[in-house]
Formats: sequence, C-alpha cells, structure tokens
Amino acid sequence: MKLTAVGTMAFDSIETPFGKSERIIGGAATYIGLAASYFTDSASLVSVVGEDFPEEFMQNLRGRSLNLDGVEQRKGEKSFFWAGKYHIDMNSRDTLDTQLNVLADFKPVVPEHSTSSEFLMLGNLTPAVQMSVIEQMTERPKLIVMDTMNFWMEVAMDELKQTIGKVDVLSINDEEARLLTDEYSLVKAARKILKMGPSYLIIKKGEHGALLFHENEVFFAPALPLEDVFDPTGAGDTFAGGFIGYLASLSDVSFEGMKQAVIYGSAMASFCVEKFGTERLMNLSRPEIEKRAQRFIDLTQVEITFA
Amino acid sequence: MKLTAVGTMAFDSIETPFGKSERIIGGAATYIGLAASYFTDSASLVSVVGEDFPEEFMQNLRGRSLNLDGVEQRKGEKSFFWAGKYHIDMNSRDTLDTQLNVLADFKPVVPEHSTSSEFLMLGNLTPAVQMSVIEQMTERPKLIVMDTMNFWMEVAMDELKQTIGKVDVLSINDEEARLLTDEYSLVKAARKILKMGPSYLIIKKGEHGALLFHENEVFFAPALPLEDVFDPTGAGDTFAGGFIGYLASLSDVSFEGMKQAVIYGSAMASFCVEKFGTERLMNLSRPEIEKRAQRFIDLTQVEITFA
Repeated sequence: MKLTAVGTMAFDSIETPFGKSERIIGGAATYIGLAASYFTDSASLVSVVGEDFPEEFMQNLRGRSLNLDGVEQRKGEKSFFWAGKYHIDMNSRDTLDTQLNVLADFKPVVPEHSTSSEFLMLGNLTPAVQMSVIEQMTERPKLIVMDTMNFWMEVAMDELKQTIGKVDVLSINDEEARLLTDEYSLVKAARKILKMGPSYLIIKKGEHGALLFHENEVFFAPALPLEDVFDPTGAGDTFAGGFIGYLASLSDVSFEGMKQAVIYGSAMASFCVEKFGTERLMNLSRPEIEKRAQRFIDLTQVEITFA
Repeated sequence: MKLTAVGTMAFDSIETPFGKSERIIGGAATYIGLAASYFTDSASLVSVVGEDFPEEFMQNLRGRSLNLDGVEQRKGEKSFFWAGKYHIDMNSRDTLDTQLNVLADFKPVVPEHSTSSEFLMLGNLTPAVQMSVIEQMTERPKLIVMDTMNFWMEVAMDELKQTIGKVDVLSINDEEARLLTDEYSLVKAARKILKMGPSYLIIKKGEHGALLFHENEVFFAPALPLEDVFDPTGAGDTFAGGFIGYLASLSDVSFEGMKQAVIYGSAMASFCVEKFGTERLMNLSRPEIEKRAQRFIDLTQVEITFA
C-alpha cells in the first residue's frame, strides 16, 4: 500500500446552528480515507469499530479501493461515540458526550501489506498509540504526517512531543500551535515547532485558511468564502486526507509539492463543511475537485503593475 | 488635488501587551495621509485640530507634499483624544477614554482646490459629516472610498446607510459587516452590502487578511504572518490610505486595479503595526514598499500540477 492512515471510525451526533444529525458515521480515519480515495487507489486504513458499525458503510469504503484489513471489528462491543455542539462562529464547539468504547484499549495492528507504506497518516489519537504505529513500519516512510489536538497537550505533553519528534509534517490548528509552544505569534510558534522534529508545519485556521511553514519559508492557502459552513466536523481530517492523498499521487514531498497539497487539502475540506458529516464527500468527482482547487488559486491571483 | 481625504487628526494613548505610548499623534486622516503620500504627491487632508497639535508634525506632513489647507486649527481648543488598550489577540480592544474636543462640532470645509478631486477618501466620522464632504464636491469623484465603524451602526444606522448609498467602495471589518447586515456569513453579508450602493466592498479581517467583493467576484489578500503585531492602531486607516493612494497613482478603478490596491493597502498596514503609532510610516521607501507587496504575492504563489 502506498498510503496507510490510522485513526478513529466512529459515530457522531452533531448539532450546528443549521440543524441536528444523530449518530452519523464519522471518525478521523473515515474522513481521511474518503478524502484520500479521490487521489490514490492504494490506501489502507487502520482502525477499530464495534459490532454496531454498519457493514454497508465498510463495503462502500472498500468500493473506493480503500483496504480495510487493518480495521478490527470487535464482536459485542460498541464503536467510539462523540456528541458535540457548534457555536455560531463554527470555530468553537462544546463536547456534549464522549464514549470511548472500543477505543479505550485500541492497539492498532498495521497489516503486513502496509508496513512499508511510503506515506503514513497519523490521525488524532493518543500520542503513544500513534507512536506504536510508527514503530510497526518496517521501513521509514518517505513522509509521516501527524494530526493531534489540544487535549493531548493538556494531559500527555511529554509523550506528545516524543511522537512529534518522529514525524515530518505536523498539522494542527492555531489554538493548538499556541498551546504547544506558549507563543501567541504563529511565526514564533512555528519556529519552535520546527525545532521539535517536523520539517513542515501546517497551521489550520478554519475559515481563515491555512499556513504551511518550512525552514524560513511560509505559504498561505486561503479558505474559500462560503455561503454557509454547514458542519465543520471532520474538516481537519478531510484536509489531512486530501493533503497526503495528493502527495501520494504526486510522489513528491518537496515544499512545492506540499504547497499544492495544502490547496487540495483545503479544497476537500471546503466540500466537507457544505453538508452534515461525510455526506458531501461520498459523491465527488475528480473534475469537481480540480475546479474547486482552481477557485482557491484564483482567489488570490493578482498581477502587480509596478507604478 | 487628485486625492482628498477627510478624517480625524488626534492624540492617542495606547496600551498593548508590548508596552504603553502616551499621547502620540494619531487619527484617521494622519494615517491615511501618511500612507497615501508614498503613492501620490497630489493629496490634501481635511480635518480639525486644537492649538495643542504640534506644528512640527504639520510641517512634516507638508514636507510629504500633503496639502493641509483643509486642516482647521482652532485656537484655545484641544485636539481629539482617544485612549485604548489592546488584548493579547490584538483584534479586540477596550476604549479607556474619548475626549471629542474640537471634533464635537467638526464641520469639514473642502478647500476649493480639492472640490473636484477624482479620488475621495472618507475616514471614519459621523456619517452625516462624511455626507457633507460628498456634497461639497463640485464634480462626482471617480472613486469615493468610505471607512466607518460599529459605533455608527448602533447609534445612526439610517444616516449611515444614506452615506453608504453614495460611495463606490466601503471598507469595514468582519464584525462590522455582520453588524451592518445581520448576516454571519461574510458572503451573504457582502451580497447585502453590494445592494446598498457600493459596487466594491472590502472586508478587513486583521491578521487574517482582507476580502474584496465586486459583483459575483471575490479576491482575497492574505495578511503577512508577522513575528509580532506591536500596535494595530491606525492599521485600517493605513490600509485605506495605501489602497486609495495606489489607485490614484494608477488612475485605474477596475476590479484588477482594486485587487492590486488591496495588496498595497495590506502592505502599508503590515508596516504600520510593526511599531507604535505612526512611527513605522514616517520613514519608508518606495522600494521597501514594493518588496513588501511582493512578499504578499509570494505568500500565496503556487503552481498546480494537475495529476
């Protein structure tokens, strides 16, 4: 497998100012896999689900050439469940309920056909669990991308920093970058994080776009001004899936390649937020994605006439 | 005069997380004039100051080819004074003190040599006062740009909308766009505002860049990721001054011209916030400005390899 992604597969109950959605399918690996599947047909997911996880959905994923050999299904147990409510600005949310269920003692096992993947995506999980996946790789992947969240900075900072030290790209949001470094300025935060191990840092700013830092360079991908952000759940994972999926298809891990990948990740995320859950990601076409990516490019296009 | 700008000239006391500055020179017309002076030598300011406003500073402005015939200096009276304190995010601030002084009954008089200016900048003032300036123009300017603030939306919405109805470009921040339209989505807010009269709308998002809306088109100028935003006072006025100054130098009021002008306005604002008050704007060079504008362009530059 060219690309392997580890993360949750879950049920989400989501409330936004636009409505409610009860127990729909979510989870980092789900969003990552869906987004990546538009760019590569050699991807496998590593995750865990309960008996309650619908076989029909698994079949749908397999139909997208996603290999699910690494998805453990536990009889008599329940899938991870998360319930949350978004505020009007869609950047802040309250967690209403978290039921770890099968996730409580999740020990991901990377199938043999995936232990030499060139591209490894670590979806948000306990940093030690993410580390255990890196350790199962028989060859150092060409590119390891890691997502994480503020929670681990509060309860497992040391472990988190150890895992961060092993990856090439860290993808977090602005609040998390500040929390990780104690720096308000994102430029200063980026400088500190690039000293922790990763050679690339992506700072996601939701409706305000995303920044890509590398050595002394910086690239900015705007967010598309949308009529409505319907449901931001999974946008970060979808970004990550589009990002690493595009890079896997390009087989390029240069700064120039990453810049393009940030645009494709942003394009995928912009689709994701248009409907509840994974709905909008289920029926995209490649021309639709190219057109959306082009809109991101056009948004900042300007020719300067030096006066 | 090619360009005429009306606005306050004032003293500001500013507190930011980086320090304090007592009674330094500020005011919308000051920032607009300074920024515009790097692009045109045919600009005049219309404002009012008290006896306490330093002649030395007025001389400095005149030395930049800014015509001050329209700046009334009132004997025995004090200049407008504002004191404010910024929070760590620099996007929110508390007003600690406002002393209107000469501003209380400010009736701007546009000097004859400026009543046929092609470019008119209305700095933030009572909407009725802004309107009185439009009415003094003997020819309809080629371009009227208007700045305003949330305060007028709360206390003088009807007057405000009348003035907005007379201008070509409205320049406000995201919070103000939402307040003006009761729409959270900036795309929806923009659509409503473009029906109020202006054919162009600029939504400034501070550290998150600026959006330019026109008919069904949208352009996004990023903000430069800075080490530190030292003092955001005057950034919006500096943006406006750079924007209209550049357009006046170009004599172009097309969407393409406006896009470039948004970049130059953003570049000027990025200098402004690097030091307290007007300090950083006093000694710039044109090559320095071009170089900064180029950094804004480079920040979003990417070539897509369609896979």
